[in-house]
Amino acid sequence: MLSADAAADAGALRRQIEQAAARIAADVRRTPLWRLPGRALGLDVAEVWLKLEHLQIGGSFKARGMFNRMRSLPLPPAGVVVASGGNAGIAVATAARALGVPCEVFLPEVSTPAKRAALAALGATVNVRGAVYAEALAACQARQRETGALLMHAYDQSEVVIGAGTLAAEIEADAGALPDRLLVSVGGGGLVAGIAAWCAGRCRVEALEPERAPTLHAARQQGRPVDVAVAGVAADSLGAQRIGSIAWDISQRWVDGSLLLPDEAIRAAQQRLWRDYRLAVEPAAALGPAALWSGALRPQPHERVAVVLCGANFDPASLA
Amino acid sequence: MLSADAAADAGALRRQIEQAAARIAADVRRTPLWRLPGRALGLDVAEVWLKLEHLQIGGSFKARGMFNRMRSLPLPPAGVVVASGGNAGIAVATAARALGVPCEVFLPEVSTPAKRAALAALGATVNVRGAVYAEALAACQARQRETGALLMHAYDQSEVVIGAGTLAAEIEADAGALPDRLLVSVGGGGLVAGIAAWCAGRCRVEALEPERAPTLHAARQQGRPVDVAVAGVAADSLGAQRIGSIAWDISQRWVDGSLLLPDEAIRAAQQRLWRDYRLAVEPAAALGPAALWSGALRPQPHERVAVVLCGANFDPASLA
Repeated sequence: MLSADAAADAGALRRQIEQAAARIAADVRRTPLWRLPGRALGLDVAEVWLKLEHLQIGGSFKARGMFNRMRSLPLPPAGVVVASGGNAGIAVATAARALGVPCEVFLPEVSTPAKRAALAALGATVNVRGAVYAEALAACQARQRETGALLMHAYDQSEVVIGAGTLAAEIEADAGALPDRLLVSVGGGGLVAGIAAWCAGRCRVEALEPERAPTLHAARQQGRPVDVAVAGVAADSLGAQRIGSIAWDISQRWVDGSLLLPDEAIRAAQQRLWRDYRLAVEPAAALGPAALWSGALRPQPHERVAVVLCGANFDPASLA
Repeated sequence: MLSADAAADAGALRRQIEQAAARIAADVRRTPLWRLPGRALGLDVAEVWLKLEHLQIGGSFKARGMFNRMRSLPLPPAGVVVASGGNAGIAVATAARALGVPCEVFLPEVSTPAKRAALAALGATVNVRGAVYAEALAACQARQRETGALLMHAYDQSEVVIGAGTLAAEIEADAGALPDRLLVSVGGGGLVAGIAAWCAGRCRVEALEPERAPTLHAARQQGRPVDVAVAGVAADSLGAQRIGSIAWDISQRWVDGSLLLPDEAIRAAQQRLWRDYRLAVEPAAALGPAALWSGALRPQPHERVAVVLCGANFDPASLA
């Protein structure tokens, strides 16, 4: 049961998410929710709902938060700046182009050449700085102080989290109900926080991370956000070094499970999603299917399980 | 207006399609219908409905017809045989494995190595015979007479056409209405015939073919089915040499337009579907978007246009 305060907070967050959904409705895509019987995926559950969010504009869920922040705040002449392992940068560049403002992106060296090229093609100025995300972020913040541009954070700003929450609102609206359990990948935690804010105890939310990029899992073990080393197949998307402060707050209330998955299970699920379902998604989007197919997560047979396929910014040749 | 006979036929066909949908409901996937405002695709139309049928089991719409035929007729001990440019063979092999019967597939040399490997992986016996589809078909028919297996035709059997029609029934059920116009790719014509049988004049059906594989277009010009030479980017899927007799009959009543598209427009649309929408589909599935994006087809601004993305059995490395 929620406390009275938590219930009030949940109501306020849900209203903010509803307002965000209206604010960005003309900017983003309402992505399909594909409802399948569990047996269609070889799983002993009643239903699996695949939220095909990798079809979102910019190739990931990130567009929701970025459009929401840019539609909520005044846009200075210098435009926007962002430090991003890739998907957030693409989303900011996409939104900046759509809204007609300049965009600078700061990337760590772990980012893929394909993502850098995609950013340049979107008209963004691309700066590669530092080995990991935190270093690119420091460079980005320094640049923001110089230019006065609006700083876009990849996950730890309220408009970004609230925008991500619109994804869960769509699932509930399209299905007419929340699922019993909702599986979501975690990097910096913006997506899981937005989804948990929407669900707020009304369904079980499972946070999934690669073993080699365990920001939320480590924070839960330590009782506070801590820096972690990041590596592995999903590092370019889920390579934040530390869970966001907003995500940490929200996740303590409303994220029920935290699970780590080995790279081999993630990669196998990504390949199987293509081979058997013709869903071309990046490794970060394969964590939910990986948890189910590997048996790491075993929902009850009566459950309806929603899985967010959160992005597809990757080289499809890696599927062949 | 339909004649009284045509209306009676349409009603009978629609009932057969409804029965087929019930018959194969547990075998095939109900694929998503993604409804987008026209502007989301850069088009001056009210809505575009993308039927994501490339996510179907076996990677194409063909599973619908094949399961329907195999669920409708007795299955002999020798199982099934089929001659197929690829997708029909994969669908038959998939259905045969699911139903536990043997399967032999006959392919022309134009078929891709990836499709042959996929068939073998599904447990089918693969035979490569002849330069084009018609030669593979002759070899297949000879084999059928030897073994007594159930002959599965890639497009020209009533159960196959009726099964394909279930796709249109799903579109109408999911949207709550038919679109104003429905765009569908044509090879041997099984899919367009099934869809036209369901719609039967209630919406405009546009048959799209590559310039270099114009079976229906040539038949309409000549007033009867004729052999055509086939080549080009979509030949391995749409490489039938002649429109099927069932498709010819149905299309004369209920297919409104017949349009040819150059390979360059098809290939460009396939690439754009990946780049901007993260939809990984084979060239044959890109004809509808190609017709719209190239301006070859210009629906009215008020129209809701449905486009069938019919398959994704291809090498995703070709998108990179």
